[in-house]
Amino acid sequence: MNSQADSPFTAYFSQDIKALDKRFRRNLVNSLSGYKSVCLCGTSDPAGIHNLAIISSVFHVGAHPPLMGMLLRPPVVQRDTYENIARTGFFTLNHLHPGITHQGHQTSARYPEEVSEFEATGLTPLLVEGFPAPFVAESRVRIGLQVKERHHLISNSTVLVIGEVLYVSLPEAAVQEDGLIDLQATETVTVSGLDTYHVGEKLVRLSYAKPDEDLRELKD
Amino acid sequence: MNSQADSPFTAYFSQDIKALDKRFRRNLVNSLSGYKSVCLCGTSDPAGIHNLAIISSVFHVGAHPPLMGMLLRPPVVQRDTYENIARTGFFTLNHLHPGITHQGHQTSARYPEEVSEFEATGLTPLLVEGFPAPFVAESRVRIGLQVKERHHLISNSTVLVIGEVLYVSLPEAAVQEDGLIDLQATETVTVSGLDTYHVGEKLVRLSYAKPDEDLRELKD
Repeated sequence: MNSQADSPFTAYFSQDIKALDKRFRRNLVNSLSGYKSVCLCGTSDPAGIHNLAIISSVFHVGAHPPLMGMLLRPPVVQRDTYENIARTGFFTLNHLHPGITHQGHQTSARYPEEVSEFEATGLTPLLVEGFPAPFVAESRVRIGLQVKERHHLISNSTVLVIGEVLYVSLPEAAVQEDGLIDLQATETVTVSGLDTYHVGEKLVRLSYAKPDEDLRELKD
Repeated sequence: MNSQADSPFTAYFSQDIKALDKRFRRNLVNSLSGYKSVCLCGTSDPAGIHNLAIISSVFHVGAHPPLMGMLLRPPVVQRDTYENIARTGFFTLNHLHPGITHQGHQTSARYPEEVSEFEATGLTPLLVEGFPAPFVAESRVRIGLQVKERHHLISNSTVLVIGEVLYVSLPEAAVQEDGLIDLQATETVTVSGLDTYHVGEKLVRLSYAKPDEDLRELKD
Protein backbone atom coordinates (compact mmCIF):
# COMPACT_ATOMS: atom_id res chain seq x y z
CA MET A 1 0.00 0.00 0.00
CA ASN A 2 1.18 3.45 -0.83
CA SER A 3 2.27 5.30 2.28
CA GLN A 4 0.16 8.35 1.37
CA ALA A 5 -2.94 6.19 1.52
CA ASP A 6 -2.35 5.73 5.24
CA SER A 7 -2.27 9.45 5.92
CA PRO A 8 -5.07 11.11 7.88
CA PHE A 9 -8.28 11.68 5.97
CA THR A 10 -9.56 15.15 5.26
CA ALA A 11 -13.21 16.00 4.58
CA TYR A 12 -14.83 18.70 2.49
CA PHE A 13 -18.48 19.51 3.04
CA SER A 14 -20.67 21.34 0.54
CA GLN A 15 -19.94 24.78 1.95
CA ASP A 16 -16.19 24.02 2.05
CA ILE A 17 -16.20 23.07 -1.64
CA LYS A 18 -18.07 26.23 -2.59
CA ALA A 19 -15.63 28.37 -0.58
CA LEU A 20 -12.50 26.88 -2.19
CA ASP A 21 -10.22 28.92 -4.40
CA LYS A 22 -11.53 28.56 -7.97
CA ARG A 23 -8.48 26.81 -9.40
CA PHE A 24 -8.15 24.44 -6.42
CA ARG A 25 -11.85 23.55 -6.68
CA ARG A 26 -11.63 22.95 -10.41
CA ASN A 27 -8.69 20.58 -9.99
CA LEU A 28 -10.18 18.77 -7.00
CA VAL A 29 -13.65 18.22 -8.46
CA ASN A 30 -12.27 17.32 -11.88
CA SER A 31 -10.28 14.49 -10.35
CA LEU A 32 -13.11 13.10 -8.20
CA SER A 33 -14.37 10.86 -10.97
CA GLY A 34 -11.00 9.11 -11.10
CA TYR A 35 -9.32 8.24 -14.40
CA LYS A 36 -11.28 9.66 -17.29
CA SER A 37 -11.52 8.54 -20.86
CA VAL A 38 -9.90 11.06 -23.17
CA CYS A 39 -10.47 11.25 -26.93
CA LEU A 40 -9.91 13.63 -29.80
CA CYS A 41 -13.25 14.60 -31.30
CA GLY A 42 -13.15 15.29 -35.05
CA THR A 43 -15.87 17.28 -36.83
CA SER A 44 -16.35 19.23 -40.07
CA ASP A 45 -18.13 22.49 -40.64
CA PRO A 46 -20.32 23.04 -43.71
CA ALA A 47 -17.39 24.75 -45.47
CA GLY A 48 -15.28 21.62 -44.96
CA ILE A 49 -12.95 23.01 -42.28
CA HIS A 50 -11.86 20.16 -40.01
CA ASN A 51 -12.12 20.75 -36.29
CA LEU A 52 -10.42 18.73 -33.57
CA ALA A 53 -11.05 19.01 -29.81
CA ILE A 54 -9.84 17.03 -26.83
CA ILE A 55 -12.75 15.67 -24.79
CA SER A 56 -12.44 14.04 -21.38
CA SER A 57 -16.10 13.26 -20.79
CA VAL A 58 -16.61 10.28 -23.11
CA PHE A 59 -18.41 7.29 -21.65
CA HIS A 60 -19.84 3.94 -22.68
CA VAL A 61 -23.64 3.92 -23.00
CA GLY A 62 -24.53 0.52 -24.40
CA ALA A 63 -23.33 -2.30 -26.65
CA HIS A 64 -26.51 -3.12 -28.58
CA PRO A 65 -27.16 -0.75 -30.21
CA PRO A 66 -23.52 0.39 -29.87
CA LEU A 67 -23.71 3.78 -28.16
CA MET A 68 -21.28 6.24 -26.62
CA GLY A 69 -21.91 9.52 -24.85
CA MET A 70 -19.98 12.70 -24.26
CA LEU A 71 -20.63 15.94 -22.48
CA LEU A 72 -19.92 19.23 -24.20
CA ARG A 73 -19.46 22.43 -22.30
CA PRO A 74 -21.77 25.31 -23.17
CA PRO A 75 -21.78 26.17 -26.88
CA VAL A 76 -20.01 29.44 -26.16
CA VAL A 77 -16.94 27.51 -24.99
CA GLN A 78 -16.73 24.58 -27.39
CA ARG A 79 -18.54 26.36 -30.18
CA ASP A 80 -16.94 24.72 -33.19
CA THR A 81 -17.37 21.14 -32.02
CA TYR A 82 -20.87 21.81 -30.75
CA GLU A 83 -22.06 23.63 -33.85
CA ASN A 84 -20.49 21.15 -36.25
CA ILE A 85 -22.17 18.24 -34.48
CA ALA A 86 -25.49 20.07 -34.39
CA ARG A 87 -25.27 20.86 -38.12
CA THR A 88 -23.86 17.64 -39.54
CA GLY A 89 -24.94 15.02 -36.99
CA PHE A 90 -21.59 13.21 -37.20
CA PHE A 91 -18.38 13.13 -35.19
CA THR A 92 -15.35 10.93 -34.61
CA LEU A 93 -13.62 9.90 -31.38
CA ASN A 94 -9.94 8.98 -31.56
CA HIS A 95 -7.88 7.49 -28.71
CA LEU A 96 -4.68 9.20 -27.61
CA HIS A 97 -1.40 7.32 -27.21
CA PRO A 98 1.82 8.72 -25.69
CA GLY A 99 3.18 9.74 -29.11
CA ILE A 100 0.31 12.18 -29.75
CA THR A 101 -0.57 13.30 -26.22
CA HIS A 102 1.17 16.68 -26.47
CA GLN A 103 -0.50 17.41 -29.81
CA GLY A 104 -3.84 16.25 -28.45
CA HIS A 105 -3.56 18.54 -25.43
CA GLN A 106 -2.56 21.42 -27.69
CA THR A 107 -5.92 21.19 -29.53
CA SER A 108 -7.46 22.77 -26.40
CA ALA A 109 -5.79 26.12 -27.21
CA ARG A 110 -8.26 28.75 -28.39
CA TYR A 111 -7.36 29.07 -32.04
CA PRO A 112 -9.15 31.58 -34.27
CA GLU A 113 -12.24 30.10 -35.91
CA GLU A 114 -10.68 29.78 -39.36
CA VAL A 115 -7.75 27.69 -38.07
CA SER A 116 -8.05 23.90 -38.13
CA GLU A 117 -6.56 22.29 -35.02
CA PHE A 118 -5.24 19.55 -37.32
CA GLU A 119 -2.96 22.00 -39.11
CA ALA A 120 -2.11 23.90 -35.93
CA THR A 121 -0.97 20.76 -34.09
CA GLY A 122 0.40 18.71 -36.98
CA LEU A 123 -2.10 15.88 -36.66
CA THR A 124 -3.38 14.42 -39.92
CA PRO A 125 -7.07 14.27 -40.88
CA LEU A 126 -8.02 10.86 -42.23
CA LEU A 127 -11.16 10.64 -44.32
CA VAL A 128 -13.18 7.46 -44.70
CA GLU A 129 -15.41 7.36 -47.77
CA GLY A 130 -18.99 8.22 -46.98
CA PHE A 131 -18.25 9.44 -43.44
CA PRO A 132 -18.64 13.22 -43.05
CA ALA A 133 -16.19 13.86 -40.18
CA PRO A 134 -12.40 13.53 -40.06
CA PHE A 135 -10.57 10.82 -38.11
CA VAL A 136 -7.04 11.26 -36.73
CA ALA A 137 -4.57 9.28 -38.84
CA GLU A 138 -2.05 9.01 -35.97
CA SER A 139 -4.62 7.56 -33.55
CA ARG A 140 -4.76 3.78 -33.08
CA VAL A 141 -8.43 3.47 -32.13
CA ARG A 142 -10.75 5.51 -34.37
CA ILE A 143 -14.50 5.57 -33.93
CA GLY A 144 -17.11 7.17 -36.19
CA LEU A 145 -20.47 8.11 -34.66
CA GLN A 146 -23.84 9.57 -35.61
CA VAL A 147 -25.83 11.64 -33.12
CA LYS A 148 -28.92 9.86 -31.78
CA GLU A 149 -29.94 12.06 -28.86
CA ARG A 150 -29.05 15.32 -27.18
CA HIS A 151 -29.95 16.34 -23.64
CA HIS A 152 -29.47 19.77 -22.14
CA LEU A 153 -28.40 19.63 -18.51
CA ILE A 154 -30.13 22.31 -16.52
CA SER A 155 -27.64 22.25 -13.63
CA ASN A 156 -24.74 23.75 -15.57
CA SER A 157 -25.80 24.36 -19.18
CA THR A 158 -23.78 21.51 -20.65
CA VAL A 159 -25.05 19.31 -23.46
CA LEU A 160 -24.97 15.54 -23.43
CA VAL A 161 -24.56 14.00 -26.87
CA ILE A 162 -25.35 10.32 -27.42
CA GLY A 163 -23.95 8.82 -30.62
CA GLU A 164 -24.31 5.46 -32.32
CA VAL A 165 -21.05 3.80 -33.37
CA LEU A 166 -21.09 3.38 -37.16
CA TYR A 167 -17.41 2.64 -37.73
CA VAL A 168 -14.41 1.38 -35.76
CA SER A 169 -10.83 1.04 -36.97
CA LEU A 170 -8.04 -0.35 -34.78
CA PRO A 171 -4.98 -2.63 -34.86
CA GLU A 172 -6.13 -6.19 -35.49
CA ALA A 173 -3.71 -7.61 -32.94
CA ALA A 174 -5.15 -5.41 -30.17
CA VAL A 175 -8.56 -7.08 -30.39
CA GLN A 176 -8.58 -10.10 -28.09
CA GLU A 177 -10.34 -13.34 -28.99
CA ASP A 178 -13.48 -12.36 -27.10
CA GLY A 179 -13.63 -8.82 -28.46
CA LEU A 180 -12.01 -6.91 -25.58
CA ILE A 181 -9.58 -4.28 -26.80
CA ASP A 182 -6.17 -4.58 -25.14
CA LEU A 183 -5.73 -0.95 -24.10
CA GLN A 184 -2.13 -1.59 -23.10
CA ALA A 185 -1.41 -2.80 -26.65
CA THR A 186 -2.95 0.35 -28.13
CA GLU A 187 -1.18 2.36 -25.39
CA THR A 188 -4.47 4.20 -24.83
CA VAL A 189 -4.04 7.26 -22.63
CA THR A 190 -6.32 8.31 -19.77
CA VAL A 191 -6.51 11.67 -18.02
CA SER A 192 -7.01 12.84 -14.44
CA GLY A 193 -8.16 16.35 -13.77
CA LEU A 194 -7.63 18.70 -16.67
CA ASP A 195 -4.07 18.05 -17.70
CA THR A 196 -2.47 14.94 -16.19
CA TYR A 197 -2.08 12.02 -18.58
CA HIS A 198 -1.53 8.36 -17.72
CA VAL A 199 -1.36 4.96 -19.33
CA GLY A 200 -2.90 1.92 -17.68
CA GLU A 201 -1.19 -0.99 -16.01
CA LYS A 202 -3.31 -4.11 -15.85
CA LEU A 203 -4.06 -5.52 -12.41
CA VAL A 204 -6.45 -8.37 -13.07
CA ARG A 205 -9.32 -9.63 -15.20
CA LEU A 206 -12.10 -11.20 -13.14
CA SER A 207 -14.76 -13.79 -13.97
CA TYR A 208 -18.49 -13.02 -14.06
CA ALA A 209 -19.62 -12.63 -10.44
CA LYS A 210 -22.21 -15.03 -8.99
CA PRO A 211 -23.63 -15.02 -5.46
CA ASP A 212 -22.21 -18.37 -4.33
CA GLU A 213 -19.07 -18.71 -6.35
CA ASP A 214 -15.51 -17.47 -5.85
CA LEU A 215 -14.16 -15.10 -8.49
CA ARG A 216 -11.50 -16.47 -10.79
CA GLU A 217 -8.69 -14.42 -12.31
CA LEU A 218 -8.97 -14.80 -16.08
CA LYS A 219 -5.94 -15.16 -18.33
CA ASP A 220 -6.20 -13.56 -21.76
CA MET B 1 5.91 1.71 -29.41
CA ASN B 2 4.21 -1.56 -28.68
CA SER B 3 4.68 -4.02 -31.53
CA GLN B 4 0.96 -4.78 -31.64
CA ALA B 5 0.29 -1.14 -32.45
CA ASP B 6 2.13 -1.63 -35.74
CA SER B 7 -0.07 -4.54 -36.81
CA PRO B 8 -2.51 -4.14 -39.71
CA PHE B 9 -5.66 -2.21 -38.92
CA THR B 10 -9.04 -3.86 -39.05
CA ALA B 11 -12.32 -2.00 -39.60
CA TYR B 12 -15.84 -2.70 -38.43
CA PHE B 13 -18.74 -0.97 -40.17
CA SER B 14 -22.19 -0.60 -38.66
CA GLN B 15 -23.53 -3.81 -40.20
CA ASP B 16 -20.41 -5.72 -39.06
CA ILE B 17 -20.90 -4.58 -35.45
CA LYS B 18 -24.56 -5.59 -35.50
CA ALA B 19 -23.67 -9.02 -36.91
CA LEU B 20 -21.03 -9.79 -34.27
CA ASP B 21 -21.45 -12.54 -31.72
CA LYS B 22 -23.21 -11.00 -28.71
CA ARG B 23 -20.37 -11.52 -26.21
CA PHE B 24 -17.71 -10.33 -28.65
CA ARG B 25 -19.75 -7.21 -29.43
CA ARG B 26 -20.33 -6.47 -25.75
CA ASN B 27 -16.61 -6.69 -24.99
CA LEU B 28 -15.54 -4.70 -28.04
CA VAL B 29 -18.03 -1.85 -27.65
CA ASN B 30 -17.51 -1.69 -23.89
CA SER B 31 -13.81 -1.06 -24.41
CA LEU B 32 -14.21 1.58 -27.15
CA SER B 33 -14.43 4.40 -24.63
CA GLY B 34 -10.99 3.49 -23.27
CA TYR B 35 -10.26 3.44 -19.54
CA LYS B 36 -13.42 4.00 -17.57
CA SER B 37 -13.94 5.43 -14.12
CA VAL B 38 -15.17 2.74 -11.74
CA CYS B 39 -16.82 3.42 -8.39
CA LEU B 40 -18.88 1.63 -5.78
CA CYS B 41 -22.27 3.28 -5.49
CA GLY B 42 -23.79 3.12 -2.00
CA THR B 43 -27.51 3.65 -1.36
CA SER B 44 -30.09 2.89 1.31
CA ASP B 45 -33.64 1.70 0.93
CA PRO B 46 -36.45 3.10 3.11
CA ALA B 47 -36.07 0.10 5.45
CA GLY B 48 -32.41 0.98 5.98
CA ILE B 49 -30.89 -1.90 4.00
CA HIS B 50 -27.60 -0.76 2.49
CA ASN B 51 -27.05 -1.47 -1.15
CA LEU B 52 -23.71 -1.40 -2.98
CA ALA B 53 -23.21 -1.63 -6.74
CA ILE B 54 -20.17 -1.32 -8.98
CA ILE B 55 -20.68 1.39 -11.63
CA SER B 56 -18.35 2.00 -14.56
CA SER B 57 -20.18 4.91 -16.14
CA VAL B 58 -19.28 7.73 -13.75
CA PHE B 59 -18.12 10.97 -15.32
CA HIS B 60 -17.21 14.53 -14.39
CA VAL B 61 -19.92 17.07 -15.23
CA GLY B 62 -18.70 20.36 -13.78
CA ALA B 63 -16.72 21.93 -10.96
CA HIS B 64 -18.95 24.86 -9.99
CA PRO B 65 -21.44 23.72 -8.92
CA PRO B 66 -19.58 20.44 -8.28
CA LEU B 67 -21.43 17.83 -10.37
CA MET B 68 -20.89 14.22 -11.37
CA GLY B 69 -22.96 11.99 -13.62
CA MET B 70 -23.53 8.28 -13.95
CA LEU B 71 -25.58 6.10 -16.22
CA LEU B 72 -27.76 3.38 -14.77
CA ARG B 73 -28.99 0.47 -16.80
CA PRO B 74 -32.76 -0.04 -17.02
CA PRO B 75 -34.45 -0.24 -13.60
CA VAL B 76 -35.14 -3.95 -14.15
CA VAL B 77 -31.40 -4.67 -14.11
CA GLN B 78 -30.06 -2.33 -11.43
CA ARG B 79 -33.33 -2.15 -9.53
CA ASP B 80 -32.04 -1.62 -6.01
CA THR B 81 -29.64 1.19 -6.82
CA TYR B 82 -32.10 2.85 -9.16
CA GLU B 83 -35.06 2.64 -6.79
CA ASN B 84 -33.06 3.74 -3.77
CA ILE B 85 -31.79 6.80 -5.61
CA ALA B 86 -35.26 7.61 -6.92
CA ARG B 87 -36.72 7.32 -3.41
CA THR B 88 -34.08 8.95 -1.27
CA GLY B 89 -32.33 11.32 -3.71
CA PHE B 90 -28.88 10.50 -2.27
CA PHE B 91 -26.01 8.19 -3.19
CA THR B 92 -22.30 7.79 -2.57
CA LEU B 93 -19.46 7.03 -4.98
CA ASN B 94 -16.36 5.32 -3.58
CA HIS B 95 -13.10 4.72 -5.48
CA LEU B 96 -11.68 1.22 -5.76
CA HIS B 97 -8.07 0.41 -4.94
CA PRO B 98 -6.31 -2.92 -5.56
CA GLY B 99 -7.07 -4.20 -2.04
CA ILE B 100 -10.85 -4.04 -2.58
CA THR B 101 -11.13 -4.70 -6.31
CA HIS B 102 -12.22 -8.34 -5.95
CA GLN B 103 -14.86 -7.39 -3.38
CA GLY B 104 -15.99 -4.49 -5.54
CA HIS B 105 -16.39 -6.73 -8.59
CA GLN B 106 -18.28 -9.27 -6.48
CA THR B 107 -21.00 -6.67 -5.74
CA SER B 108 -22.16 -7.20 -9.34
CA ALA B 109 -23.45 -10.70 -8.47
CA ARG B 110 -27.25 -10.89 -8.39
CA TYR B 111 -27.93 -11.29 -4.72
CA PRO B 112 -31.50 -11.73 -3.43
CA GLU B 113 -33.15 -8.40 -2.63
CA GLU B 114 -32.89 -8.81 1.15
CA VAL B 115 -29.12 -9.32 1.03
CA SER B 116 -26.85 -6.27 1.45
CA GLU B 117 -23.83 -6.42 -0.85
CA PHE B 118 -21.81 -4.98 2.04
CA GLU B 119 -22.39 -8.09 4.13
CA ALA B 120 -22.08 -10.44 1.17
CA THR B 121 -18.69 -9.08 0.14
CA GLY B 122 -17.26 -8.11 3.52
CA LEU B 123 -17.04 -4.39 2.79
CA THR B 124 -17.94 -2.08 5.67
CA PRO B 125 -20.66 0.57 5.48
CA LEU B 126 -19.49 3.89 6.86
CA LEU B 127 -22.14 6.39 7.93
CA VAL B 128 -21.58 10.12 8.04
CA GLU B 129 -23.97 12.02 10.27
CA GLY B 130 -26.76 13.61 8.34
CA PHE B 131 -26.00 11.83 5.08
CA PRO B 132 -28.62 9.22 4.17
CA ALA B 133 -26.49 6.79 2.11
CA PRO B 134 -23.61 4.55 3.17
CA PHE B 135 -19.99 5.12 2.21
CA VAL B 136 -17.42 2.31 1.91
CA ALA B 137 -15.04 2.41 4.88
CA GLU B 138 -12.27 0.62 2.96
CA SER B 139 -12.36 3.10 0.08
CA ARG B 140 -9.84 5.95 0.02
CA VAL B 141 -11.87 8.49 -1.94
CA ARG B 142 -15.48 8.76 -0.78
CA ILE B 143 -17.98 11.13 -2.34
CA GLY B 144 -21.53 11.92 -1.16
CA LEU B 145 -24.00 13.25 -3.74
CA GLN B 146 -27.56 14.49 -4.03
CA VAL B 147 -29.56 13.97 -7.22
CA LYS B 148 -30.11 17.17 -9.22
CA GLU B 149 -31.39 15.85 -12.55
CA ARG B 150 -32.40 12.65 -14.26
CA HIS B 151 -32.61 12.07 -18.00
CA HIS B 152 -34.09 9.01 -19.67
CA LEU B 153 -32.17 7.99 -22.77
CA ILE B 154 -34.53 6.89 -25.50
CA SER B 155 -31.90 4.97 -27.47
CA ASN B 156 -31.46 2.17 -24.93
CA SER B 157 -33.69 2.84 -21.90
CA THR B 158 -30.87 3.80 -19.57
CA VAL B 159 -31.14 6.60 -17.03
CA LEU B 160 -28.62 9.36 -16.59
CA VAL B 161 -28.34 10.64 -13.03
CA ILE B 162 -26.63 13.97 -12.32
CA GLY B 163 -25.64 14.53 -8.69
CA GLU B 164 -24.20 17.46 -6.79
CA VAL B 165 -21.18 16.69 -4.63
CA LEU B 166 -22.05 17.47 -1.00
CA TYR B 167 -19.20 15.68 0.74
CA VAL B 168 -15.72 14.39 -0.06
CA SER B 169 -13.38 12.45 2.19
CA LEU B 170 -9.89 11.39 1.12
CA PRO B 171 -6.30 11.07 2.38
CA GLU B 172 -4.95 14.54 3.05
CA ALA B 173 -1.58 13.71 1.52
CA ALA B 174 -3.18 12.70 -1.79
CA VAL B 175 -4.50 16.22 -2.41
CA GLN B 176 -1.83 18.20 -4.22
CA GLU B 177 -1.18 21.86 -3.54
CA ASP B 178 -3.42 23.00 -6.38
CA GLY B 179 -6.27 20.61 -5.56
CA LEU B 180 -5.54 17.80 -8.03
CA ILE B 181 -5.96 14.38 -6.44
CA ASP B 182 -2.91 12.18 -6.95
CA LEU B 183 -4.69 9.05 -8.22
CA GLN B 184 -1.47 7.04 -7.99
CA ALA B 185 -1.24 7.88 -4.28
CA THR B 186 -4.83 6.73 -3.71
CA GLU B 187 -4.11 3.74 -6.01
CA THR B 188 -7.41 4.48 -7.74
CA VAL B 189 -8.46 1.65 -10.05
CA THR B 190 -9.87 2.04 -13.58
CA VAL B 191 -11.68 -0.55 -15.69
CA SER B 192 -11.70 -1.51 -19.36
CA GLY B 193 -14.61 -3.45 -20.77
CA LEU B 194 -16.67 -5.23 -18.13
CA ASP B 195 -14.09 -6.94 -16.00
CA THR B 196 -10.48 -5.84 -16.58
CA TYR B 197 -9.03 -3.65 -13.85
CA HIS B 198 -5.98 -1.40 -14.07
CA VAL B 199 -4.10 1.21 -12.11
CA GLY B 200 -2.66 4.28 -13.79
CA GLU B 201 0.94 5.13 -14.50
CA LYS B 202 1.57 8.83 -14.93
CA LEU B 203 3.01 9.98 -18.24
CA VAL B 204 3.01 13.74 -18.00
CA ARG B 205 1.23 16.82 -16.70
CA LEU B 206 0.97 19.57 -19.30
CA SER B 207 0.57 23.34 -19.02
CA TYR B 208 -2.52 25.24 -20.15
CA ALA B 209 -2.48 25.26 -23.95
CA LYS B 210 -2.26 28.57 -25.82
CA PRO B 211 -2.18 29.10 -29.60
CA ASP B 212 1.34 30.52 -29.85
CA GLU B 213 3.14 28.94 -26.95
CA ASP B 214 4.93 25.62 -26.50
CA LEU B 215 3.51 23.28 -23.89
CA ARG B 216 5.55 22.81 -20.73
CA GLU B 217 5.70 19.62 -18.69
CA LEU B 218 4.63 20.53 -15.16
CA LYS B 219 6.27 19.09 -12.07
CA ASP B 220 4.00 18.44 -9.12
